[in-house]
Amino acid sequence: MRDHSGYVEKTRHQAMQDVLDIWKFERMTETIPVTEALGRVAAEDILSKNTLPNKLTSNMDGIAVHFDAFKGGAPDTSTWVRGVDWQFCNTGIGMPENFDTAIPIEWVHVSEDDQHVTLDRLPERRGNATTQAGANLRVGDMLVRKGEPLTPAKLSLLNMGGHTDVCVVKRPIVAFIPTGNELVDAGEPLPAGKNVESNAVMLCAKFTLWGAEPLRFPIVKDDWDQLEKALTEASEKADIVVINAGSSKGSDDFTCEILAETGQMLHHMLSQGPGRHCSGAILNGTPVIGISGPPIGAEFTADWMVKPLIDRYLGVSEEYPPMVYARMEFAPEFWPEAVQVVRRGIVERDAHDRLVARILPTDERPMLRGLDEANCFITYGRGVQRWKAGDIHPVELRWPYTIPPAR
Amino acid sequence: MRDHSGYVEKTRHQAMQDVLDIWKFERMTETIPVTEALGRVAAEDILSKNTLPNKLTSNMDGIAVHFDAFKGGAPDTSTWVRGVDWQFCNTGIGMPENFDTAIPIEWVHVSEDDQHVTLDRLPERRGNATTQAGANLRVGDMLVRKGEPLTPAKLSLLNMGGHTDVCVVKRPIVAFIPTGNELVDAGEPLPAGKNVESNAVMLCAKFTLWGAEPLRFPIVKDDWDQLEKALTEASEKADIVVINAGSSKGSDDFTCEILAETGQMLHHMLSQGPGRHCSGAILNGTPVIGISGPPIGAEFTADWMVKPLIDRYLGVSEEYPPMVYARMEFAPEFWPEAVQVVRRGIVERDAHDRLVARILPTDERPMLRGLDEANCFITYGRGVQRWKAGDIHPVELRWPYTIPPAR
Repeated sequence: MRDHSGYVEKTRHQAMQDVLDIWKFERMTETIPVTEALGRVAAEDILSKNTLPNKLTSNMDGIAVHFDAFKGGAPDTSTWVRGVDWQFCNTGIGMPENFDTAIPIEWVHVSEDDQHVTLDRLPERRGNATTQAGANLRVGDMLVRKGEPLTPAKLSLLNMGGHTDVCVVKRPIVAFIPTGNELVDAGEPLPAGKNVESNAVMLCAKFTLWGAEPLRFPIVKDDWDQLEKALTEASEKADIVVINAGSSKGSDDFTCEILAETGQMLHHMLSQGPGRHCSGAILNGTPVIGISGPPIGAEFTADWMVKPLIDRYLGVSEEYPPMVYARMEFAPEFWPEAVQVVRRGIVERDAHDRLVARILPTDERPMLRGLDEANCFITYGRGVQRWKAGDIHPVELRWPYTIPPAR
Repeated sequence: MRDHSGYVEKTRHQAMQDVLDIWKFERMTETIPVTEALGRVAAEDILSKNTLPNKLTSNMDGIAVHFDAFKGGAPDTSTWVRGVDWQFCNTGIGMPENFDTAIPIEWVHVSEDDQHVTLDRLPERRGNATTQAGANLRVGDMLVRKGEPLTPAKLSLLNMGGHTDVCVVKRPIVAFIPTGNELVDAGEPLPAGKNVESNAVMLCAKFTLWGAEPLRFPIVKDDWDQLEKALTEASEKADIVVINAGSSKGSDDFTCEILAETGQMLHHMLSQGPGRHCSGAILNGTPVIGISGPPIGAEFTADWMVKPLIDRYLGVSEEYPPMVYARMEFAPEFWPEAVQVVRRGIVERDAHDRLVARILPTDERPMLRGLDEANCFITYGRGVQRWKAGDIHPVELRWPYTIPPAR
């Protein structure tokens, strides 16, 4: 049993800020085809190399005419020659040369041989039903700003602007090291008292969704040398390291001791639970986030402590979890003074379209429900304003942030 | 110029429903590793093969004791023998054999040699600080239901439940055929009056995000034989075909004629604009959606006419775009009777947290702004209740559906 009296406890916001403040890194970039850039983050401002349309273009299917022919009112079109006085034109296609005005086909009768036209209506202005050159895009227009994620529409804009390659931020590599003598890989026989390692697949999937490249390490035993070797290797290979062990006082958990000896320990625990045993350190310049084992806490401490690091690396705006005000359907029976208690909750709309919040029942198999069904966190305890059932109180949306829209 | 008098126009909802009603297909499945299943859709209900914990487990770092020793009040622990009367226990790990109760380490003083303990507090009940076998998961528990997308948490549940492989719905193949003599590939020299093909990258990215596998065809010229060949090949290779041409009356656009001759034409156009020239057909049993060329209309007709087909194939719940009520900042000057006009809008919160809606300016380069910035659609014209500025009126959220949360 080790002495933990020197352990540093921080609020999660302070803990995250301190890691972000001390972390120095070089943001790497790479140039890739636009067709493979969905979800990547632009590493620089990207300007259009094209002007679109690049000439006067019809925005209707119809016929192209000279507006001057209408100066004296309705012209006699029986003498018109196709190609000279009129020509077919099509939506999105450059107008035939020298024609300046389009008439929608709905206003036109075309002869059987496609050589003569009569008109039901006349164009009202020069340029009718056409699009000026440059109306959609001009050389030098900003297509995508540095730090913007590349959505489907942005990819299209890049193509329109003449770009087939795009310079994006490299995906940061996030190592995940599961540790613990009690863990066995999923699918292996499970001896009594042992547990299935099931956080890796969840957290690596999250890292992927957040724009990083996960690097999963094999399960490491609670052994000083093996842990130190894995941490060192991970800190050298990865941009961010997540070790699933945290700062438990467990008799064989050496993670914090190793990090204190080989790196710079920033905090050992958070002022909340679940997920209290969440540590932060810098090792070889790489942030190392220790996350506690139980999936209920591991899942959201990753949202809170790892996603901001990935956002910082990518240079995207660092979203803080949004809060919404909701009518609380319950108040906690016990109000702890020492820590904050984080409960998974549901925020939804009542019959009057008001947001109401409740917690998921924890009496039976909370993992089955809590991991996936909750859409908010409800926090009480130290530093949180007390509330009673029926009060309006802020709750924190859970990533991915959604609230049910009003009816 | 062809006769379009027989063309069938439908509302977009009717058009989509008719395609869905007539489309018959066999949903294919495949078994893949859980580690590669992020975002895929479960093809069957999946039950737990594990019970977790599989024995009584400590949920604290501390010591394991026999609760019977506390029946007569505080026991004399000076005679306790480690391994017999007490033993260390760790969070998430099976309790040492025959011990039934845990005491958090914070309540315990441990001697230097780790062999003796004294207690500050006593456990209040048998089973204190432990988790019963099966509290997290039991054999037969439902982990994932058929038709549910596999989130990070669901992947974790699958691992917990003993699954390393999972049976998922095959990604439907969605062919995309860009057509038009005016199109050149992005990055190629752009002759005057020609346009860059920029829809493929956008729509293929959307198909990917919606869970499909895009199959991009090269640009096809407006030539009957080439179009027929591409449509036939696509209908045989893909589960869904999207052709970027629609039902324009353009003098060289044969798509609808070919589909009418070789397949079953369901509609030629929608009662809305932009995106009016959007057709639907069945060819070799495969739905073929024709989408008009201009990106402004192509982008949202794909949301409306293609996403529901992919959802149907995957067997996920078919989301209809949610509506929200907002205060309208404008009313249209002209109210068309013939069609609905779809405008890209912004719905946001005002200083009083009320949702307000406005349209993006269309006077300059609407593509740059409209494609990516809009978060709603505002529709007016035929069949829509008139409104004036300041009225509360429903607007339709744009995929991906988000509204700004209240402050």
